[in-house]
Amino acid sequence: MHTASQATVTFQLIRNATIKLSYPGATFLVDPMLAPKDACPGFAGTYNSHLRYPLVELPLALDEILQADAVIVTHTHADHWDAAARAMIPKRMPVFAQDGHDAAAIRKDGFLDVRVFDDGAAFAGTQLVRTRGQHGTDGMMAVPALAERMGRVSGVIFVHPGCPTVYVAGDTVWTGEVEQAIVRHRPDVIVLNTGYARVLGMDGAIIMGKEDLERAHRLAPQATVIGIHMEAVNHGMQTRRELREFIALQGLDATRVLVPEDGASCSFQR
Amino acid sequence: MHTASQATVTFQLIRNATIKLSYPGATFLVDPMLAPKDACPGFAGTYNSHLRYPLVELPLALDEILQADAVIVTHTHADHWDAAARAMIPKRMPVFAQDGHDAAAIRKDGFLDVRVFDDGAAFAGTQLVRTRGQHGTDGMMAVPALAERMGRVSGVIFVHPGCPTVYVAGDTVWTGEVEQAIVRHRPDVIVLNTGYARVLGMDGAIIMGKEDLERAHRLAPQATVIGIHMEAVNHGMQTRRELREFIALQGLDATRVLVPEDGASCSFQR
Repeated sequence: MHTASQATVTFQLIRNATIKLSYPGATFLVDPMLAPKDACPGFAGTYNSHLRYPLVELPLALDEILQADAVIVTHTHADHWDAAARAMIPKRMPVFAQDGHDAAAIRKDGFLDVRVFDDGAAFAGTQLVRTRGQHGTDGMMAVPALAERMGRVSGVIFVHPGCPTVYVAGDTVWTGEVEQAIVRHRPDVIVLNTGYARVLGMDGAIIMGKEDLERAHRLAPQATVIGIHMEAVNHGMQTRRELREFIALQGLDATRVLVPEDGASCSFQR
Repeated sequence: MHTASQATVTFQLIRNATIKLSYPGATFLVDPMLAPKDACPGFAGTYNSHLRYPLVELPLALDEILQADAVIVTHTHADHWDAAARAMIPKRMPVFAQDGHDAAAIRKDGFLDVRVFDDGAAFAGTQLVRTRGQHGTDGMMAVPALAERMGRVSGVIFVHPGCPTVYVAGDTVWTGEVEQAIVRHRPDVIVLNTGYARVLGMDGAIIMGKEDLERAHRLAPQATVIGIHMEAVNHGMQTRRELREFIALQGLDATRVLVPEDGASCSFQR
């Protein structure tokens, strides 16, 4: 996938939360997890930790996936920034980190051009606005060890004059800040991690689920809402099939609520 | 490159010491260094350490390179078994290590099927015979810190009934054991690392050079001798061009002494 033509934004799901967004002037690779199937033991203390992840292979050749101009890492959990990404992404590629802590870790892996988008950033004419997230329920955040493990997370709003605005919410549950981001920035495209990943012993999930997809659609019916981060890691409890059944059952507009397969892409114009 | 047809062995140089050998029944990927160009700072204390390595990109798509049935790691120096290889090679791929020490390190990286070829091994009808090497001159080996850094190294002789025998000498200088391996096993193909990599402050090199290519050819004029491990790491002092000029100057049989480009392959029959 190459840089999109003027005023068009192309979204492509690679796998899990790994996506490409091609704005005029630059293609962004977001949250790269590039390991082959079964590379890692399941996340300890989560559902289905007996399964190795990634559950599936990458849908495209790595060379094609790596055709990008900059990388954005919403947070450094291993299903968003893995050993394979650290090893295979060229060290001179610009990498945007959510804060100085993550930037330092990425630099330590040899990356030579690491930038921070905490207070916003710009690349090739596209503004990157950081949004906040909460990587688990309030109940989870009340358990210090769990809150620390989940850590700080971010979303990104991509703003480019004349182009659709895209909001990539990142690993977060539904919060007031997610709502505010949608209301304030009026994104044309909203990308939500709806895999409903769960940790053992806690109610709820550490990312969104099907109800959140509906919430976003009700809040921004003019936008296209895309659910990703499914069927790739051991602790994801929400399948695409269930999500599509839910969309049909709730009578949601299936042209506005998308559940793409790995490798699928979709172009948007304003 | 797929598994070769009966009685044919296909050799392919990927880059540096990374090669593929396709025997009937199995393709072996040897000494995978899979990082993109410039991924790592030059080796400290070696020539041209200001240069990042690999000096060049891989010549083929990674997916194609990874089409193999087993991996052989002659030793675990970073230009033979790198972070990219550790991250990108499927964790269920059989990996052959020279000894228990290397096997433990490879298992620690998550590989699930690590085998040792110290006392020989077999895979899909091909015998793997370990040969010894010396990763530097006698003068270097007399310096304990340097000897330890260079470490234990191996070569492999591939023996398959009806097929050409291939001797991959690995990272070694010319020694009596290299000579013995050639005399005893009478390989049809001899692969030598002739990049003449050098460390600072020491005479000679830590791997072979052009004279060693000639030595092998004189010792086994019936064999095809192939020089690799050139123009990919910072401290290699021997270029392909110089090697080819040397071959011409010495009047060596250019059909028996090959200096392949990255990605080039060559098939052999008995």
